[in-house]
Amino acid sequence: MSETKSTEVYLTRRSPHYWRVTFDHPPLNIFGPKTLPQMSEIITAIENDEQVKVVVFESAVEGFFLIHLDFLAKLDDLTRLPPGPTGLHPWPDMLVRLSRAPVVSIALIRGRATGMGSELALACDMRFASREKAILSQFEVGAGLVPGGGPMARLSRLMGRGRALEVILSADDVQGDLAELYGYVNRSLPDADLDGFVDALANRIASFDKQTIRDTKRLVNVASLPPDIEIESGWDACVASMARPATQQRIKTLIDRGFSRSGDAENRLGYFVGQT
Amino acid sequence: MSETKSTEVYLTRRSPHYWRVTFDHPPLNIFGPKTLPQMSEIITAIENDEQVKVVVFESAVEGFFLIHLDFLAKLDDLTRLPPGPTGLHPWPDMLVRLSRAPVVSIALIRGRATGMGSELALACDMRFASREKAILSQFEVGAGLVPGGGPMARLSRLMGRGRALEVILSADDVQGDLAELYGYVNRSLPDADLDGFVDALANRIASFDKQTIRDTKRLVNVASLPPDIEIESGWDACVASMARPATQQRIKTLIDRGFSRSGDAENRLGYFVGQT
Amino acid sequence: MSETKSTEVYLTRRSPHYWRVTFDHPPLNIFGPKTLPQMSEIITAIENDEQVKVVVFESAVEGFFLIHLDFLAKLDDLTRLPPGPTGLHPWPDMLVRLSRAPVVSIALIRGRATGMGSELALACDMRFASREKAILSQFEVGAGLVPGGGPMARLSRLMGRGRALEVILSADDVQGDLAELYGYVNRSLPDADLDGFVDALANRIASFDKQTIRDTKRLVNVASLPPDIEIESGWDACVASMARPATQQRIKTLIDRGFSRSGDAENRLGYFVGQT
Repeated sequence: MSETKSTEVYLTRRSPHYWRVTFDHPPLNIFGPKTLPQMSEIITAIENDEQVKVVVFESAVEGFFLIHLDFLAKLDDLTRLPPGPTGLHPWPDMLVRLSRAPVVSIALIRGRATGMGSELALACDMRFASREKAILSQFEVGAGLVPGGGPMARLSRLMGRGRALEVILSADDVQGDLAELYGYVNRSLPDADLDGFVDALANRIASFDKQTIRDTKRLVNVASLPPDIEIESGWDACVASMARPATQQRIKTLIDRGFSRSGDAENRLGYFVGQT
Repeated sequence: MSETKSTEVYLTRRSPHYWRVTFDHPPLNIFGPKTLPQMSEIITAIENDEQVKVVVFESAVEGFFLIHLDFLAKLDDLTRLPPGPTGLHPWPDMLVRLSRAPVVSIALIRGRATGMGSELALACDMRFASREKAILSQFEVGAGLVPGGGPMARLSRLMGRGRALEVILSADDVQGDLAELYGYVNRSLPDADLDGFVDALANRIASFDKQTIRDTKRLVNVASLPPDIEIESGWDACVASMARPATQQRIKTLIDRGFSRSGDAENRLGYFVGQT
Repeated sequence: MSETKSTEVYLTRRSPHYWRVTFDHPPLNIFGPKTLPQMSEIITAIENDEQVKVVVFESAVEGFFLIHLDFLAKLDDLTRLPPGPTGLHPWPDMLVRLSRAPVVSIALIRGRATGMGSELALACDMRFASREKAILSQFEVGAGLVPGGGPMARLSRLMGRGRALEVILSADDVQGDLAELYGYVNRSLPDADLDGFVDALANRIASFDKQTIRDTKRLVNVASLPPDIEIESGWDACVASMARPATQQRIKTLIDRGFSRSGDAENRLGYFVGQT
């Protein structure tokens, strides 16, 4: 599945100030071995460009925003990568860099965002979801895994301890209405309005002064970002959990039943991990 | 009233992984001299058991989840108890230990949760309320008391400064809808659905891996728990407030009007403390 | 406009325990050169009075709660003022003192609260808004300015990072329903109910014990107030942004189109700053 296309993540410049990043890795937008280097290149471009002010992340795949690791690929390759500029593993490295980038990042969520898809959305500055078609979750605990891309740190600060524990420890699907009530997303909008809303917001912010955006965001960061050590600790706990026999067994059982492949398991992932 | 039954807090093991704790001290589920040692024993069991993953706290008494101290009992006994393992007074000690326990705690709230009942719910990992029948509050400020079990620390982090100050300083009743809007509870559910929802969630989490639950919760704790010193400072302020003549006079007036006894004062406590 | 009246901010003592502060500087309740010293005097009175327990801030001007700086007045006068008792510039100084005052402050918001008006509301302990007639915003980023009175610090803690970034970086109007959903205000009430609700709450709290209120609020402050250094850093970034040519040009363009004067620009400020 990870071999079907060579470009899974596209960067489109709508204008020098307003970019779109599109996940296009059908059928699941699963996070494969090529996703990481392709996203890494884009994050670096976002950090270094002198003109871009707004980046919208979206999906071109029906039903999926961006999901978890491809458990059918070789996972050792991923965990053994050398650290990124922050000293963190490349995945959490990329996320904390995106949150600190002097650019406004917006996740436009239609379809399922779970695992790394949810973590990317949480690393963005804002999240807008399709009321009917968005599903957010951190499915990991249901597979015996500690989530690795920071949701313990980020969801706790976004929605408070009680709701964060529910989302993460239930490992269940969160639909648009509940995602809005909990603050998992800024707002859920009727699916027909979502694209227009996000586009208008992105164009609006792109008309503002870049240095003002940067200086203002920097101060929100001081007040709201978790320290990197919390993200690092979460990644380490994830890697440790992946190595445990009990977790390996759970993942094997899930794979035997259809996990990481197109079909009912991924379509109804929250239900699925509760049936083990 | 505190003499009517010898067991006020029951522990039931639905399975080795899923326990229920039931408050059964009619007619008010008032927090009497025996409540503390009985709960202490249960908290210690929860901490030390190697199999339990989920504990649900609930009430067997119509109209009351768990309420405040029994002001008709000898309060000196309570404030002079030796500290618990954390160095805090046994009541806040028990609460901070519950929040850190490697087990998922869920408050199923039907009826009034005020004072210690609200504080226990806030120390739990998650809270689900009956939309029609739950009433949450911290009535203390209306009686001249600083709340002693940590709501200043916990509500501020759960619902933000403005709503926390309103809940605590108004000392008023919060019904199901508002409790959900403010994030006082995770969700309020139709009363008919509440038991089934909580039971399904508890069973779901109980099917997951204990070490994964523990390691994941530990990282949410880092991001979301107040430091113990804030809870200790709140307890000290509570004890100091209780000793002041102005507070003693307020409490005496409330008792003369029916406080701490079954009847209208406790049924409509928010209204009642506003009439002094 | 700033010359039309000599008293723009009135203090009324409804009782020794319950005060009202009324902004009455028609037609816009714009923040002019006299507003700061008049408010300063009132904040000092609130801090030092031994009896007051509750202060409600409200407007006597149709359509406006309190808005931004009068950009047609001499701004140098404002930025060069000597620091207040906290060492901060008088405007942020006044705000952090209000948040720490041993008194409950409530913003009753009807009409537009933007810039300093939003910042004052955020420094209050609680905020209640007219569902139909309140508009909150931080318009500054749309004018090339970093907001100077602490919204990066305060909104991030109140509504979480994602919604705070949206409110501040979109610089757009937030109506009553959305303000409630986001936690910008405690609650939005039907306009016809707002005055009665706030008055009842203020009278209720005014009937409680002053020392209990103070000691309880102090502990919520520990859990919820940003450190002064974050507010100071925001003010410094605001002053720096104001001096930049790009910002001066933006503000000049806005003034040429009606900014800081009665009319459509101020009535629809969110729309207006998006048209540059």
